[in-house]
Amino acid sequence: MIKKRIGIVGATGFTGSELVRLLINHPEVEITAITSESRKGEEFSDVHPQFLGLINNKLISINDLPKDLDIVFLALPHGVSMDFVKAHHENYRIIDLSGDFRLSGKNIYEFWYKKDHVYADGFANAVYGLPELYRTSIKDAKLVANPGCFPTSAILALAPLFANQLVSKDHIIVDSKTGVTGAGIKVRPNTHFSVVNDNFTAYGIKTHRHSIEIQEKLEEQQKGNLSVLFTPHLLPVDRGILSTCYTKPKEKVGDKTLNSMYSAFYKDEPFIRLRKSLPNLKEVRGSNFADIFVTYDERTDTIISVATIDNLVKGAAGQAIHNMNIMLGFDEKIGLNQIPLQP
Amino acid sequence: MIKKRIGIVGATGFTGSELVRLLINHPEVEITAITSESRKGEEFSDVHPQFLGLINNKLISINDLPKDLDIVFLALPHGVSMDFVKAHHENYRIIDLSGDFRLSGKNIYEFWYKKDHVYADGFANAVYGLPELYRTSIKDAKLVANPGCFPTSAILALAPLFANQLVSKDHIIVDSKTGVTGAGIKVRPNTHFSVVNDNFTAYGIKTHRHSIEIQEKLEEQQKGNLSVLFTPHLLPVDRGILSTCYTKPKEKVGDKTLNSMYSAFYKDEPFIRLRKSLPNLKEVRGSNFADIFVTYDERTDTIISVATIDNLVKGAAGQAIHNMNIMLGFDEKIGLNQIPLQP
Amino acid sequence: MIKKRIGIVGATGFTGSELVRLLINHPEVEITAITSESRKGEEFSDVHPQFLGLINNKLISINDLPKDLDIVFLALPHGVSMDFVKAHHENYRIIDLSGDFRLSGKNIYEFWYKKDHVYADGFANAVYGLPELYRTSIKDAKLVANPGCFPTSAILALAPLFANQLVSKDHIIVDSKTGVTGAGIKVRPNTHFSVVNDNFTAYGIKTHRHSIEIQEKLEEQQKGNLSVLFTPHLLPVDRGILSTCYTKPKEKVGDKTLNSMYSAFYKDEPFIRLRKSLPNLKEVRGSNFADIFVTYDERTDTIISVATIDNLVKGAAGQAIHNMNIMLGFDEKIGLNQIPLQP
Amino acid sequence: MIKKRIGIVGATGFTGSELVRLLINHPEVEITAITSESRKGEEFSDVHPQFLGLINNKLISINDLPKDLDIVFLALPHGVSMDFVKAHHENYRIIDLSGDFRLSGKNIYEFWYKKDHVYADGFANAVYGLPELYRTSIKDAKLVANPGCFPTSAILALAPLFANQLVSKDHIIVDSKTGVTGAGIKVRPNTHFSVVNDNFTAYGIKTHRHSIEIQEKLEEQQKGNLSVLFTPHLLPVDRGILSTCYTKPKEKVGDKTLNSMYSAFYKDEPFIRLRKSLPNLKEVRGSNFADIFVTYDERTDTIISVATIDNLVKGAAGQAIHNMNIMLGFDEKIGLNQIPLQP
Repeated sequence: MIKKRIGIVGATGFTGSELVRLLINHPEVEITAITSESRKGEEFSDVHPQFLGLINNKLISINDLPKDLDIVFLALPHGVSMDFVKAHHENYRIIDLSGDFRLSGKNIYEFWYKKDHVYADGFANAVYGLPELYRTSIKDAKLVANPGCFPTSAILALAPLFANQLVSKDHIIVDSKTGVTGAGIKVRPNTHFSVVNDNFTAYGIKTHRHSIEIQEKLEEQQKGNLSVLFTPHLLPVDRGILSTCYTKPKEKVGDKTLNSMYSAFYKDEPFIRLRKSLPNLKEVRGSNFADIFVTYDERTDTIISVATIDNLVKGAAGQAIHNMNIMLGFDEKIGLNQIPLQP
Repeated sequence: MIKKRIGIVGATGFTGSELVRLLINHPEVEITAITSESRKGEEFSDVHPQFLGLINNKLISINDLPKDLDIVFLALPHGVSMDFVKAHHENYRIIDLSGDFRLSGKNIYEFWYKKDHVYADGFANAVYGLPELYRTSIKDAKLVANPGCFPTSAILALAPLFANQLVSKDHIIVDSKTGVTGAGIKVRPNTHFSVVNDNFTAYGIKTHRHSIEIQEKLEEQQKGNLSVLFTPHLLPVDRGILSTCYTKPKEKVGDKTLNSMYSAFYKDEPFIRLRKSLPNLKEVRGSNFADIFVTYDERTDTIISVATIDNLVKGAAGQAIHNMNIMLGFDEKIGLNQIPLQP
Repeated sequence: MIKKRIGIVGATGFTGSELVRLLINHPEVEITAITSESRKGEEFSDVHPQFLGLINNKLISINDLPKDLDIVFLALPHGVSMDFVKAHHENYRIIDLSGDFRLSGKNIYEFWYKKDHVYADGFANAVYGLPELYRTSIKDAKLVANPGCFPTSAILALAPLFANQLVSKDHIIVDSKTGVTGAGIKVRPNTHFSVVNDNFTAYGIKTHRHSIEIQEKLEEQQKGNLSVLFTPHLLPVDRGILSTCYTKPKEKVGDKTLNSMYSAFYKDEPFIRLRKSLPNLKEVRGSNFADIFVTYDERTDTIISVATIDNLVKGAAGQAIHNMNIMLGFDEKIGLNQIPLQP
Repeated sequence: MIKKRIGIVGATGFTGSELVRLLINHPEVEITAITSESRKGEEFSDVHPQFLGLINNKLISINDLPKDLDIVFLALPHGVSMDFVKAHHENYRIIDLSGDFRLSGKNIYEFWYKKDHVYADGFANAVYGLPELYRTSIKDAKLVANPGCFPTSAILALAPLFANQLVSKDHIIVDSKTGVTGAGIKVRPNTHFSVVNDNFTAYGIKTHRHSIEIQEKLEEQQKGNLSVLFTPHLLPVDRGILSTCYTKPKEKVGDKTLNSMYSAFYKDEPFIRLRKSLPNLKEVRGSNFADIFVTYDERTDTIISVATIDNLVKGAAGQAIHNMNIMLGFDEKIGLNQIPLQP
């Protein structure tokens, strides 16, 4: 069997190393090229020593990327991906892990990202890479916009409610808590160990750009306008997102109805686990699972749905590989059999 | 000057040791007696070695508690305090750190605590020990019900809104995150290091008894019924609570109005710090401060208020000493000048 | 191909769940039976929810263990394993993860473990399951005593020095630091999150029973008596051991010599990675690697060797599966291709 | 009473903020000036928000430092302090928290610090500010070189052995483990939360400059040459150092002798606590205590001594204030009554 040839653009960050972690043991592909401008010429395992002995790739310049790649993953920062996509969208099938093509268009992007967008045409061609909602479009996509980590958790927690027109269009609150890897590998004052350890804080309140990503995708389910309030918080953990979501049902509802609705919506989904008890981060750590719990609080007439994911796997690299599997016609689960690392 | 004589009933837990930490350097009182049935006869510093060389009290039985104490702190579990209060409410001025007398009456207690209450008369006499709201009543109280840790943070974050009739009576969501010490010193499967570390989860969803404590006290501010949804989460940190609270204003409101309202409400309060940026746990750790941030999100028409406290200090022992200072006519700040330990 | 049939005795602890994590994806075996007396009848994933959807085994009583198993892993506490071995050593090929058969005999066991040993004959038949040193004997063993976690790290760090008669027989210091999972899943005061978090301590000083396990195995390399001082410390991390080992060379030596010696000693070993820089815990987390660094300090005439392992993998379940692969004639690396989870 | 006037040079780091934390409640001094070149003009609490409402000092330039200060603390990096000392040693009594004047002279400094020293004359005038060993000289010192954090722990753990000529001059091993704050507040790749959290590593092996600081001061106790091997390790905790020290007694010795020797050596020392059980980091956190445990291992003929300190207090700011108290003739304990924050 000839393995498919994979390129990874951007190697020094957490998503780059996580793509490699998951692809090394993928039986149908080979990692043909990994690029890094700042570290080119070095071994990949010089940058990420945990891979010593496991991979022999030397980092190359993006200019030396082979032409004959079956998929290219972009593990680049927001605002940088769009340049590559603009230049190469004819040459490669691309899975972009940045936020550059997730929203509905240039204007909304520029409002939320406070950045000019250089390739407005890309939005129309990009498919939002959440397989549970967009599987069919992903199959033939040339450009997949891999979802943000918070949106993955929030949309999965809430989509069945909106798809079934069950809840109010406002009073939608997503209170999310993330591990530090969501902020990237770059050193910043707010990711210093002593700032984060034994600490907890909210951030990006009212203005975080995942707010609009969540809202737009839920509006597609609802087929109507919504008002979603999203508040992220920073946990002293490496990996994982837990989103606690509050919505108002249009009329009283029971847990049995909710559970049936979620079971039907996520029927046969390989990476969704509906939970009967409250999920936690370590039960999905290192894996591509999204664990979801939903319940109705009669006293306050509120639906509470909770989802957990590993932000680097289901929230980034794992979901990207799921998309790749769909695009290349593989069994969707292949290469994604990592068991949650607990404890 | 003759120092006031203090008794602490219950010494082996976190609130017991925290009361001692704060009282050792209090210039107006002496720790006359500390009780423990399981460790009586031992030195207090045998149980809590951090106090080696700092305190010489031997632990005594509750049966040997001296008669002439000016204040007795109860650092006992829920359901145990009520026995002491029933037996001794004529003999001592009591500050009870358990939940046994915080609610409005026996029936509501028994519904939420799933436990019989042996001293229903206590409710009428107990004063809720949140100085910012009940200072006047605390002064002459014989029995102070020291507030729960979550309610302290949530009520302080929300009280100005309800006192000013600014917000809707439903759609009130309190999403709280606490350190592990809130669960007490007793070993349990869910406080094992490897269960909590690098992990995060919600718990007690819909049924946590602090829900009703928050709701009842905010109803007193509102002078009307409310519907408060409270969801606690467990953080991998030792100390601290952050509550993110969402309410709906009756009409649009600006941050300037909110800030003025909060400033007026908490004028001259020694332990409230109104923040212009988002607070975090370490900025209050080890201190009696409550840091509060409030803002209005116009896009979703929601008020977000965030409060942080150290659950063992402002959420327990520090607030108890604040109450003691009021009851004994001391300067309220005395003995409570601990600086937040950051980092 | 017919898969080999595997039994796991003892399912509720960390080593039990870790064996399952590694065996689920092992292509040559099936997990035929998992026992637990306290939870029998329940699903394995009821006890360890991270496995939801990944395994369907119901827990059975040890009395119902099938007869036709190719390998039985004992994930039982010290002092309990010996009963099973005594009763069943004729019936099964056993890999015992407890300490019951690691030492040279009954007397030395009883001195260090402070416990009677019921099956003295077992010592003669047991093979010490450190493949790098005892591969040949493991192949045909009926009973493998899987090494302790600390000894695995210390012996691997030091064996080449003693096998080559390079260092003094005393002044051998092993200063080890372990994650909390080494203490097991059972709740104890010293594994409470708030005791361990943001804390660090030594324990078991002078008396830890891994002292003698390390010493005996190094004496076999040295072919002579040694005096090994071992001090364990408890880290606020879940997984991992780092052992810093200090020895005195008989005469001055250079790093080049040391590195050649270690390279030769560990030639072709699939799970040993000799490092040019200092290793850390996360670079082996979740994997079966032992990373080793060695250097000579001329100023103080001391050799410093540092080894890191994941205590639950190379220090327990992974090494056990490595032993199984040898015993059943599989490729040694099969089923052990987990990539270190970093971050 | 007129309070003594204190200046702090360098405000943005951990030692700067820790000096302020301890000095705010010191009854005999006022913080007259705090300098910062990068943040001058801002409030101190803008840089360190935990101090909001607790201090009103605006940060000033070092050029505006008042002339009439009783003590100036230098909370500057190594290599920067020397410039201030050179320029101002006639003007102020200085307590330098950097490493610039701790060693015996310019050559040894330049060898270990890999940096030119601009003020060689300073070494002769500097007193090493470890009160337990140099109290008398500190009293009248113009320049105090405040000890390094690792040396404080190691020297206190070992000094009685060398002062009593009890142990061998080689085979001295100091295996130390430190919290992250020892590396300073500046962001670096190796203090990123996700690099440190749930991780552990050795660093600076063979070359850390505290090696020579420890060795020189112990040589003064020994009155002879020593060979000290020091290995630091990085813990995933904020504060605290634990040093495990191994020495060889010249002849067999008992725990009773060791304990008497340590008791005599540290008689009446206000911040030394001799422990009967193994100390841990949280039992000294936030306080100026050094907890010390010593024992003899007969089997391996080794003395093991363990010391714990808070690296920012006894290892930096607290010890500096202890020195100030001695220099200004105060009760040594004044302002240093912080109780260890546990948990």
